[in-house]
Amino acid sequence: MVDPLLPFELEEELDRDYLVELAQLQLELLKLQEHIRAQGLRLLVIFEGRDAAGKGGAILRLSQNLNPRHVRTIALAKPTAIEQGQWYFQRYLHGLPDPGEIVLFDRSWYNRAVVEPVFEFCSEAQRKRFLEQVVDVERMLVEDGIVLVKLWFSIDRDVQAERLEARVRNPLRRWKLSPIDRAAQANWDAFTRYKEAMFSATSSESAPWTIVRGNVKKRARLEGIRHVLGRVDYPGRGAEGLRLEPDPEVVLRAT
Amino acid sequence: MVDPLLPFELEEELDRDYLVELAQLQLELLKLQEHIRAQGLRLLVIFEGRDAAGKGGAILRLSQNLNPRHVRTIALAKPTAIEQGQWYFQRYLHGLPDPGEIVLFDRSWYNRAVVEPVFEFCSEAQRKRFLEQVVDVERMLVEDGIVLVKLWFSIDRDVQAERLEARVRNPLRRWKLSPIDRAAQANWDAFTRYKEAMFSATSSESAPWTIVRGNVKKRARLEGIRHVLGRVDYPGRGAEGLRLEPDPEVVLRAT
Amino acid sequence: MVDPLLPFELEEELDRDYLVELAQLQLELLKLQEHIRAQGLRLLVIFEGRDAAGKGGAILRLSQNLNPRHVRTIALAKPTAIEQGQWYFQRYLHGLPDPGEIVLFDRSWYNRAVVEPVFEFCSEAQRKRFLEQVVDVERMLVEDGIVLVKLWFSIDRDVQAERLEARVRNPLRRWKLSPIDRAAQANWDAFTRYKEAMFSATSSESAPWTIVRGNVKKRARLEGIRHVLGRVDYPGRGAEGLRLEPDPEVVLRAT
Amino acid sequence: MVDPLLPFELEEELDRDYLVELAQLQLELLKLQEHIRAQGLRLLVIFEGRDAAGKGGAILRLSQNLNPRHVRTIALAKPTAIEQGQWYFQRYLHGLPDPGEIVLFDRSWYNRAVVEPVFEFCSEAQRKRFLEQVVDVERMLVEDGIVLVKLWFSIDRDVQAERLEARVRNPLRRWKLSPIDRAAQANWDAFTRYKEAMFSATSSESAPWTIVRGNVKKRARLEGIRHVLGRVDYPGRGAEGLRLEPDPEVVLRAT
Repeated sequence: MVDPLLPFELEEELDRDYLVELAQLQLELLKLQEHIRAQGLRLLVIFEGRDAAGKGGAILRLSQNLNPRHVRTIALAKPTAIEQGQWYFQRYLHGLPDPGEIVLFDRSWYNRAVVEPVFEFCSEAQRKRFLEQVVDVERMLVEDGIVLVKLWFSIDRDVQAERLEARVRNPLRRWKLSPIDRAAQANWDAFTRYKEAMFSATSSESAPWTIVRGNVKKRARLEGIRHVLGRVDYPGRGAEGLRLEPDPEVVLRAT
Repeated sequence: MVDPLLPFELEEELDRDYLVELAQLQLELLKLQEHIRAQGLRLLVIFEGRDAAGKGGAILRLSQNLNPRHVRTIALAKPTAIEQGQWYFQRYLHGLPDPGEIVLFDRSWYNRAVVEPVFEFCSEAQRKRFLEQVVDVERMLVEDGIVLVKLWFSIDRDVQAERLEARVRNPLRRWKLSPIDRAAQANWDAFTRYKEAMFSATSSESAPWTIVRGNVKKRARLEGIRHVLGRVDYPGRGAEGLRLEPDPEVVLRAT
Repeated sequence: MVDPLLPFELEEELDRDYLVELAQLQLELLKLQEHIRAQGLRLLVIFEGRDAAGKGGAILRLSQNLNPRHVRTIALAKPTAIEQGQWYFQRYLHGLPDPGEIVLFDRSWYNRAVVEPVFEFCSEAQRKRFLEQVVDVERMLVEDGIVLVKLWFSIDRDVQAERLEARVRNPLRRWKLSPIDRAAQANWDAFTRYKEAMFSATSSESAPWTIVRGNVKKRARLEGIRHVLGRVDYPGRGAEGLRLEPDPEVVLRAT
Repeated sequence: MVDPLLPFELEEELDRDYLVELAQLQLELLKLQEHIRAQGLRLLVIFEGRDAAGKGGAILRLSQNLNPRHVRTIALAKPTAIEQGQWYFQRYLHGLPDPGEIVLFDRSWYNRAVVEPVFEFCSEAQRKRFLEQVVDVERMLVEDGIVLVKLWFSIDRDVQAERLEARVRNPLRRWKLSPIDRAAQANWDAFTRYKEAMFSATSSESAPWTIVRGNVKKRARLEGIRHVLGRVDYPGRGAEGLRLEPDPEVVLRAT
């Protein structure tokens, strides 16, 4: 039985094989980061998915052993009244990577494609305009040389249910529970519809969506990192016995 | 004879008829500003043109009697090394008007269409990508509800020559003279070519260019203000005896 | 009779002798600024005084012909809820001059010594703590090498009454009238008491107060500039026939 | 034998008793944070100590289960050229806690008391002025209601030597090694002298220094958290069987 006072999911973490594999991939990420820094490249990774899909944990493992001077995680709060009246992309664009930098978006402008419509925080016209404008915005960023990776962490409905219940039980994580989390199960189907509309409108040639199957957290994290490693051609890639190709059962292209 | 110690062009300013007309138009601008503030609208006016075309003076007269809490003038400095590696539009987009605000761009992203190419501060590929991207960016801003006014202050070659010489003679303005000013006359024709390419690529339906003939400063200022007043439909417009229609000899659409 | 549509107090401005003298002093200010820039010095000028005492006009004339890259005017808005909970000095200290820079505070931390107590925006304990802390803060800034000038623009009661009425009459300035302005005459004596307590607590050896008698606007501006010019020893000081010593009838030390 | 690919010090972390005790204290920290948020209090904890004394790990454990919206860690980079010319405290004061917030300084203004003098990054006059000014600055912050906790993590010379060598061996942490780390052992005695001068000048009544003996990392973290918990009187303090009093062998007052 899991000790209720252990930090969230600690038991699951205390897995030596997983940790060794993670450390090997984090060493690769350090080479990737050094290449980005030295060449003045820009890498933007968008983490999206339903509540409890594992975005936060994936971001943590991807970034925890990087040099913090050249990586930033951006998790924007609810827009202020002033921000709500600005061009929708404005506050996100402010956080784009500087040359030499990796930026991780913990949720992103895609809030307007799925979460906001589900909760009626935006109008249908705003959602539609977003789906059109985002294709142009992302195309321009890619034309400008930004390496853009869009990851969608997918989970099954019962996995989400279990994880949200675990949050309720864990006193160290209870503050994390928002009313939106609580409504996630009830809104499952609406969420699915908006997600599919999003994939079909925004999985463009220059900025495709990548799905990371997240039912098994540790696999999702490792394979997600493998995908990111494959998107930049850094020197010194690989180590003996280390698989770099993502598992096609876990990482796949959205269509 | 003009006293060399008088503030720059003061004699020209001490013209009672002009000042009364200007004050009347500034009262209209106050009504326009109050409407923008009350309705949460956003107005962005881009001031472009050759050196000494009168952009700065026009901005000063347009803004000097507005409530400073709801109007901002943005004159960006040379980009830093970091900014040079960012998406070109990023630092400009950061300054877009908040709801209820008027923003005046003293020079703008159009630096990349004319000034930068003339002085080879950007590559031909960068200029071309800019001419394509700016149309999309401006279209998205207009779709989002920003009122976008693009003013080009035009002057003749000999007028520019005269004004630049006056700057040299005026000790209060001498610091204003940059090496770029000094090269303006020599680069007149290159400037003209890039300007024409800019008009033809970026005078779109949603964001047309307006030319303000600026050889006579005071006329250019008054007619430029009239044009801006015509772009927003504010309540209480006009006063007895006050012409609001811009003079078509001074203000015209670029083609 | 003054045309009601003329910009505020324009008639008064159209005074050739005044303008020539002002231009001469502005040339000196340019030399001062260049010295500050070249040596990496820091100059902070605090402008304080009752409503309509002439602070804004003095700031405008002092700064209008300086190189805007190296001078900033800071007029902080009402503190936000968050700022109200911060250390009182925090948001002001954020605006201190960088090396090479002149900063003009249009009102300052001294709000807490006079305006806030008059309108009961702060408690008596907050006012007292401010009067103690400000002496330490200013001493530390001066020890650190900042040149600190504290100007108090003083006017008589009837002059204030007249100027506030002129604001009501001038449609271009009517937005400037705040409820605080409207209460200025009624609170004249309370204001006086707090002002005197402020002088006696904060006119320290390292950061004395200078009074600028402001009943005659143009004199106050010219003599105020003279005082600032006297606080930094810049090269090339002075021009033939130009008085640099402030008139002791206008500029005097507070005690 | 420790797998060289395991994340830094992972073996040491995989200690169930320690993790349960840590989780219990983190639950207390959540109550403390909620009290600070609800009451609009401000808590500033300064983490200081030699290289490899365990500041970073202590900060991580203190903050990892708090609500990230109301806690910030500030680790300032080397000052820019402009910042070097500003008042020394300016950039630190910018990061003070807002009402309702906990701020953790990972190194602090005390750089000027020890690290900068050791490496001659500041003059002796600057160090002395700092030692005087910091007492006034901290007194003012405490008067203003900020709860200020100053923790000094102390280690023995041979412990530091070992930890720095472990960093060299760990490829995931090698980027962390700066030239300053490499010189830490050679400068041990100079460091000691400046540290003692700092304690004697700045362990004031209103802002005393607390020493946390850090040779055993896990103990230092747990006892350091206990000390912080004792500095704010939050409701619901404690749980059955949980010791909250810090071990006086580990946490002691500097004199």
